[in-house]
Amino acid sequence: MFFEDYDDSRTRSLISGGRFSVVYRIYGDERTAKGMAADICAEQTVEFPLRFLPQGVISQEITGRVESFEMESDGQYLAAVSFADETAAGGLPQFLNVVFGNISIKRGIQVARIIPSEGIYSFLSGPRFGVSGLRESAGVFDRPLLFTALKPMGLSAVNMATLARRFAEGGVDVIKDDHGLTNQAFAPFGERVARCADAVRDVNAKFGRKAIYVPNVTAPTGQIMERAARAKEMGAGGLLVTPGLAGFDAIRALAASDIGLPIFAHPAFIGSYALGREGVACDALFGTLMRLAGADATIFPNYGGRFPLSKTECLAIARAGGEKLGPLKPIFPAPAGGIELRDVGEMAQSYGNDMLVLVGGGLFGVGTDIVSNCRRFLDEVKRIKP
Amino acid sequence: MFFEDYDDSRTRSLISGGRFSVVYRIYGDERTAKGMAADICAEQTVEFPLRFLPQGVISQEITGRVESFEMESDGQYLAAVSFADETAAGGLPQFLNVVFGNISIKRGIQVARIIPSEGIYSFLSGPRFGVSGLRESAGVFDRPLLFTALKPMGLSAVNMATLARRFAEGGVDVIKDDHGLTNQAFAPFGERVARCADAVRDVNAKFGRKAIYVPNVTAPTGQIMERAARAKEMGAGGLLVTPGLAGFDAIRALAASDIGLPIFAHPAFIGSYALGREGVACDALFGTLMRLAGADATIFPNYGGRFPLSKTECLAIARAGGEKLGPLKPIFPAPAGGIELRDVGEMAQSYGNDMLVLVGGGLFGVGTDIVSNCRRFLDEVKRIKP
Repeated sequence: MFFEDYDDSRTRSLISGGRFSVVYRIYGDERTAKGMAADICAEQTVEFPLRFLPQGVISQEITGRVESFEMESDGQYLAAVSFADETAAGGLPQFLNVVFGNISIKRGIQVARIIPSEGIYSFLSGPRFGVSGLRESAGVFDRPLLFTALKPMGLSAVNMATLARRFAEGGVDVIKDDHGLTNQAFAPFGERVARCADAVRDVNAKFGRKAIYVPNVTAPTGQIMERAARAKEMGAGGLLVTPGLAGFDAIRALAASDIGLPIFAHPAFIGSYALGREGVACDALFGTLMRLAGADATIFPNYGGRFPLSKTECLAIARAGGEKLGPLKPIFPAPAGGIELRDVGEMAQSYGNDMLVLVGGGLFGVGTDIVSNCRRFLDEVKRIKP
Repeated sequence: MFFEDYDDSRTRSLISGGRFSVVYRIYGDERTAKGMAADICAEQTVEFPLRFLPQGVISQEITGRVESFEMESDGQYLAAVSFADETAAGGLPQFLNVVFGNISIKRGIQVARIIPSEGIYSFLSGPRFGVSGLRESAGVFDRPLLFTALKPMGLSAVNMATLARRFAEGGVDVIKDDHGLTNQAFAPFGERVARCADAVRDVNAKFGRKAIYVPNVTAPTGQIMERAARAKEMGAGGLLVTPGLAGFDAIRALAASDIGLPIFAHPAFIGSYALGREGVACDALFGTLMRLAGADATIFPNYGGRFPLSKTECLAIARAGGEKLGPLKPIFPAPAGGIELRDVGEMAQSYGNDMLVLVGGGLFGVGTDIVSNCRRFLDEVKRIKP
């Protein structure tokens, strides 16, 4: 009665029939959970009282559809809900909105799994490099990659470059900025990136290696692409981005741009999604979403360190980064946070060879010379059986 | 021993002495909570083992500092931690990173309150319009503003414009796109905004009113500013942005740009921060952060509707939008989600006159003619005692 001028056939002609799905974990008794699944279908799309919706294509195709509903355990259900590709309007922000926009504010719902469709892959083509491309960039093919971070904040760009040089001399493959280094006066972006990239390039030339320097380009809107382009010019070999601060779409834009550098995604500011039983499951968040956005490596808090994820959750993240996901390349898991050199062997047993081992502060605790400490790190990694 | 070339006096000369603070709510016994407060100081800044930090300014000034620690209730403590302004590097993303970057992944910590400093206000100057500016724009000075949304997705731009016209004819002051409308083929951005802005302008001309059309400019990176500029050209009177999808800094960039339209912030995708005892407290998230970013109105899930926030939480959000916050203008609370016309009186008693009452689906349930329904909405609002 409210939409008497509505032309159902026009809207219908714009629906391809392609649908992506999200598996939601819903908490409650069966009846409540079924009601919540139905509610998700409307809340994430039409957000309109169903009794007033125009009949036809809006109810049938644009409103989400519960494709399956099953008990996972007592009081815990899995509902697969499909959505028309067109609801995402060809963009990552609106795709995320359909997946978990308004219902992020409702209790008892977790995004357990994201299952894109051909239509979604047409605009989310994922990482440009992936595991094999990044191995090619770093020139390391048969073992995990050594990964570390420049810090602490407060050092000058000269100090940071000295540290980068030592890390490279010691054999670290990927040397990133700490994710809190942006454009502080102590080590401004341009000077820091120029000096650190130079230092790593020098060591590479001297030893015939291909170590990579990865500056942090997380920045205010409108400056990310510019910093990334400058970083490339100055010799950076990758880019660090924190999607919780810059938006997930910043990763996609960088991956799709002609800058063409591997992207390392940092988990800061999005932990709240992963900590509770609600939110987005760790593997969907740090694995699937980062990969869909276009990250080549996903940094996440390792089990057993100073963060609370379990081993099961961490291995699920790595699996989500590597499993079949349409045409998308597999990406590197980069477990991090409180890793000590003695943990490396056990980690390789868990994650396998295709990982970046991010040791930060732990590189300082084993001896007074940082170059020697890095060599010990390399020894630990080389001891891993392929 | 690792930083023998480190020049403490140079870093010291770059520290202004200005510090902002964050009050963290920490869960645990007193000893654990104290340890966590100390841990936050390092984790959010230097992220480095304290025993290896260079002595001097990095330990003294750059590492966070616990300014106060008190019991709030049994097993629940409040720790105020201050950070040097320079750690935020003059940008909102890095400010957010210091406030809650890595520790978002730790259990037992909630951001309870954000207390900026002069140094932070120098780059986060907040809303351009605020309550009085937005009232001026809409030409409504003595009562709450009527606010509604164009939906459901699937209607054409022509249908949306018809709906916008009826809302305006019925007396609604602010008519926004549903936050899920971006650039779907059913009602592409350019056509939708042009038609809806025209419809509202026509009604304004006819009745001598100043109703505002607020299109959604949440979009992929690099397209937000462009869509906002086009929207302004076409006659939009405000902009809807979802910072959970576009990044909080998208709001700041729009507020600071010469587009100069009031900004309405939508809460989709960030509910996970607000649902648990961890994350960011509702008032800090939907009140303080939205206002710091530059929103003129903050849309949040009202109590008693289909979302789980309590009345206490909702009133705290409104308070955080209106209380003294450096030089920042107060902003409109825009409670939303399942509001019916009969709720309006009670809401005005709770929130006072300075609010936007967002009634969406509820506008359809009271009668078969949408113009009459809007007039009933206006009658309800006009009945409120100033």
